[in-house]
Formats: sequence, C-alpha cells, structure tokens
Amino acid sequence: MAAAAALGEAARGTTAPNPNVGCVIVSPGGDLVGKGATGPGGRPHAEAVALAQASSATRGATLYTTLEPCAHPSQRGPTCSVIIPAAGISRVVVALIDPDQRTAGQGISMLRAEGIDVDVGAGAEVAKRSMAGYLTRLSLGRPRVTLKLALSIDGKIALPSGESKWITGEDARAHVHLERAHSDMILVGRGTYNADRPSLDVRLPGLEDRSPRRALLTRGDAVDGWEILSSPQDVYRLHDVNDLLVEGGSGVATAFLAADLVDRILIYRAPIFIGEGKSSVGYIGLDAIADAHGRWRVADGTHLGIDRLEVYERVRES
Amino acid sequence: MAAAAALGEAARGTTAPNPNVGCVIVSPGGDLVGKGATGPGGRPHAEAVALAQASSATRGATLYTTLEPCAHPSQRGPTCSVIIPAAGISRVVVALIDPDQRTAGQGISMLRAEGIDVDVGAGAEVAKRSMAGYLTRLSLGRPRVTLKLALSIDGKIALPSGESKWITGEDARAHVHLERAHSDMILVGRGTYNADRPSLDVRLPGLEDRSPRRALLTRGDAVDGWEILSSPQDVYRLHDVNDLLVEGGSGVATAFLAADLVDRILIYRAPIFIGEGKSSVGYIGLDAIADAHGRWRVADGTHLGIDRLEVYERVRES
Repeated sequence: MAAAAALGEAARGTTAPNPNVGCVIVSPGGDLVGKGATGPGGRPHAEAVALAQASSATRGATLYTTLEPCAHPSQRGPTCSVIIPAAGISRVVVALIDPDQRTAGQGISMLRAEGIDVDVGAGAEVAKRSMAGYLTRLSLGRPRVTLKLALSIDGKIALPSGESKWITGEDARAHVHLERAHSDMILVGRGTYNADRPSLDVRLPGLEDRSPRRALLTRGDAVDGWEILSSPQDVYRLHDVNDLLVEGGSGVATAFLAADLVDRILIYRAPIFIGEGKSSVGYIGLDAIADAHGRWRVADGTHLGIDRLEVYERVRES
Repeated sequence: MAAAAALGEAARGTTAPNPNVGCVIVSPGGDLVGKGATGPGGRPHAEAVALAQASSATRGATLYTTLEPCAHPSQRGPTCSVIIPAAGISRVVVALIDPDQRTAGQGISMLRAEGIDVDVGAGAEVAKRSMAGYLTRLSLGRPRVTLKLALSIDGKIALPSGESKWITGEDARAHVHLERAHSDMILVGRGTYNADRPSLDVRLPGLEDRSPRRALLTRGDAVDGWEILSSPQDVYRLHDVNDLLVEGGSGVATAFLAADLVDRILIYRAPIFIGEGKSSVGYIGLDAIADAHGRWRVADGTHLGIDRLEVYERVRES
C-alpha cells in the first residue's frame, strides 16, 4: 500500500476534480506486475492503468488501491469495480472508502458480489493526507487551502522597505516549487502581483509542466492569464480545485486566516532576525489570547538546509 | 563521562564565577565509588567532593572530570592536582582543558609528573555546552547571554492591548523555570517590571532555592532587590555571572540583539496566530536581508506539550 500511496501522491495536483489515487497489483508469487496513478484531469483511473500494465498477470493477483474502486459508469472510461473482477483479481486492499455518493461503499459491494476478498483500512492515514484536497472538497465543498509563509524567527516577511529576497535558502525555495507542483491552483494578492509579477511556475527538473493555475485575490481588474477571487469565500466556487496554495502576501494571509479558510500552514522558517519590518499577518479578529488556542496543531517539521519547515494543521471537530 | 557531565549540568547556575564541574570515580573493579559537582559559589571542587565520598576506594581508580583539575593553591580549598595523586588515583579522564590561566594545562602536567595516566577530550562537546557560561566569561569577558522569547507562529509576544498571558502552555513555562534555575542572573526591562512586577523565581519542586539574582535594564531609578544594568554593554561588568538569562520584553530583546550581545536564543513557540499585536523585536540595525544571514544556527529543537522549543546559537568565528 505504501507503493500505491507514493504513486497517488506523485499525481497530486494533476487530477482535480478527481482524487489522486495510486494502485499496484501483486501476483500470487509476490511480484509487482502493475502500477498506476490517476491520469491528468482524472482519467484513466489508477486501477485501469495498473490492470493494463499487468495484462494477463492479473489472474489470482492482489490489487492495492488508495481509494475504493469506482462503482459508477462513465463515458470517460470503464467502471473499476467491473473491470477488476473481469481481470481475475482475487483480492483487493482498499485504504479509504470513496465519499463520492456515486461509489460510497458500492464499489466494495460489487467486488464482494463477484467473490473478491476485500480488505479496507490499510494505509488509511497516509491516503487521507495525500488526498486531503479531494476529501476536503467533498466534505466542505471547497478546496483544501494551504497557506505558505517564509518567515524570520521573529515572524517578519520583509524589511520596512519591502525587501524580502531572500529570507529562506535554496532548499526551502525548492520545496515551495514541489508544493506548487502538487497544487491545482496558486493564489497571491494584488500587492504581491504588483510588486513581484511572480510567474509562480514550477522550476524543478522534470516538473516544469506541472505549473498550476494562477489566481489573484483582488476586487480590482482582471489580469490576463490569472483567475480572480474577490474574497476568500470565493473558494466555494472552485469546484475543480482540490489543492489551493495561498502564497501571500500579508493581506492575503490575513484575509484567509480571518475567514477561517486555511486548513494547513507551511512555515519556512529562516534562522534570522529581521526586527523592524513587515509582519506576516495583520488583524485576524483576535481580541483575547485564549481565543487563539486550540485551532492549530504541529503536524510535521523538518530541516531544509539551514531553514526549517513547520507544518501546522487546523484542528476541526469532525 | 556522561555521568560526570550530568552532575556538572545540575550545578549550572550555582557555581559562578567558578565553572560547574562534574566528577565521578570508578574503582578498578568498575564500581562507581564517588561522585561530585562544584559546590555553591565554587567550593568545594567537584574532584574534592568525589574523592571524599570514595574515601579509601580511590586506590588504583579512574577519575572522570568535565574540566581539568585545578593547579593553583587557594585558601578556599585544596589544589585538585595535588590531592588526586595523593589519593592513589591511577588514571584521570578530562573532557576540557581549563582556560583559566592559573591552570591551563598545568593541572594535567602535575598529574602526569606523579605518574598518572591522563586522557583529554572525551565528552568535550557536552562539557562545552554545559560550561558555556564559564567559557564565554573567560573568552569574551562577559557572561553567556541567553535570550528567551515566548512567541506565536507569527512572532508576536502580545496583543495590541499588551495581553500576553498565556501564549505558551504549562510545559513550556516549566521549562523556563528550569532554565532560570540554571542561570546566575535574570534580566528584564523596565516596561516588563512595571507591567508584571515579575518575581522571576523558580517555581519547580525541589528547586525553589535556585532562584537567581534579578536585574533590570533601565536608565531610571534603582529598585530594592534588583540590580541595575543601564545598557547591554554593562554585561562586561558582571564578573561573577556565568549565565545571564534575558527574559524580555521587546525593548530588552531589541537592545541586546542590536548590540550583538546574545549568544543563545530560546524560542518557546506556541501553535497560535496573534496577527495584529506586539512584535518581539524592533529595529536591530538591519538594512538588508542579506546582512541578517549567517548569524544564527539551529542548535536544538524539542516539543514541550503543544508548544515547541527552538534553540538558536550565535555563529562566531573562533
């Protein structure tokens, strides 16, 4: 399942509005005979790719998939819960039930009705993390919003002059490009657009074609090549975006945090003090320290060269 | 040597202006027969304590000490490099050479002249870290200065109203009390004094008697029970302080950072955003981002409940 999850994660940012699923097929003898991930825009499905690769070696094999095989017919491709039994697969291991109401357990029922042994739950945590964008869209009706900030120890994003290049080092900036490659859309504020005219493209070898759609948060004029959000609430209109990366600046970060529309935060923390300078976040509606607590938890942390990445996740009652 | 270092570390904050040394004695059969640390104010020495505890079991034993045994006579106690051979110790393991010019290698020479086998360097890194206050005082002529800040993700220390209780949780605050117990002096600014009237005492079971001396950074009037520093440069007058803990607020942090008189920073980072609020640090003389780099390195990091402690050390050419 770890191999299937890695395949699915590699496709994150390319499959919206479909989930980024990964799939591997293992022969009765223990050989990996097929592997696949969801194709660009959602088709072909990971299972169909893996079955095609395995060809005749599917008989009696075990299929591992990070999401329940689809149960609904589509003009864009075959129904996975039909072609898996047809290929002679004898066991299917599923990480997560698909919350899409067109499947939602019916895929598993169809497989079992064909005599296939189905296990559910292995690798569920990794699969949830990798498909968080898709799952957030289905449960909250909007993309998973990730806020990225490059900060000094004292939380500043620039000198009073606006100079911000470079707070973080090359390793951290490369990690940002990787995160871009795994996003469906990147959003910046009008101020950042005017100051930097950022291309927001992915500058990593082999991933140059993974540059996501670009959006501006502005009440002002449209800009060629950029989509427009006039307020953070407009994320509810983005039905074809699983992962939205909000890159700043301070006005955008403040607007999204004040609207409680951030699910994950990536802090690229440089080991420097800036002192007097631009704060990363302005007034977010907080009037007592106690009210600030219980909203965020440290989800991960790692060193990136001399910098450190802090990952926070919004704590939500589920 | 790890046991000796732990004993020395436990005495940190009580031995100034003397070093906080730890010592253990192991018999030829491998039994721990004596252990000691520098006494309050510097006497008795760790070696004398350990030798007294080992009594007659010192013959042929190995003595581990985190600092070279002293070579100079004193009216306050015996010379370690005389009493160690007299006790019949056959081998001495020393972590660090004492930079005090009255010893500075002469202790080791005296031991070797008496036929004792001496090894130097084992556990040197741990010993250096534990005795950093003493070593800084001897090399730079002032205490090791540690700046402590309790910050939000976005680097704020309070709401605009000044409310700062509590940014960090109980585990982080207990760690601050432990750090106080290992400091010889704690310093705050006049603003913090006026706002909080902090007692700055150590509120940890068993360490209540370890509350350090208190100092104010102010150009104003003296306050009963508090020593006065009129500028950060006054740390060069503190000849009897190894470890100075600077607790804030923002004015003090700014003054010490601007004067480049901070050696170590403890950031207690809470997983909260404050947004509009009080910055931790003001203008520190920085006019280009590039000049901020290369000064600090991440020395350590650990979780304290829901908070995280980030430890930074000043990078100095040596």
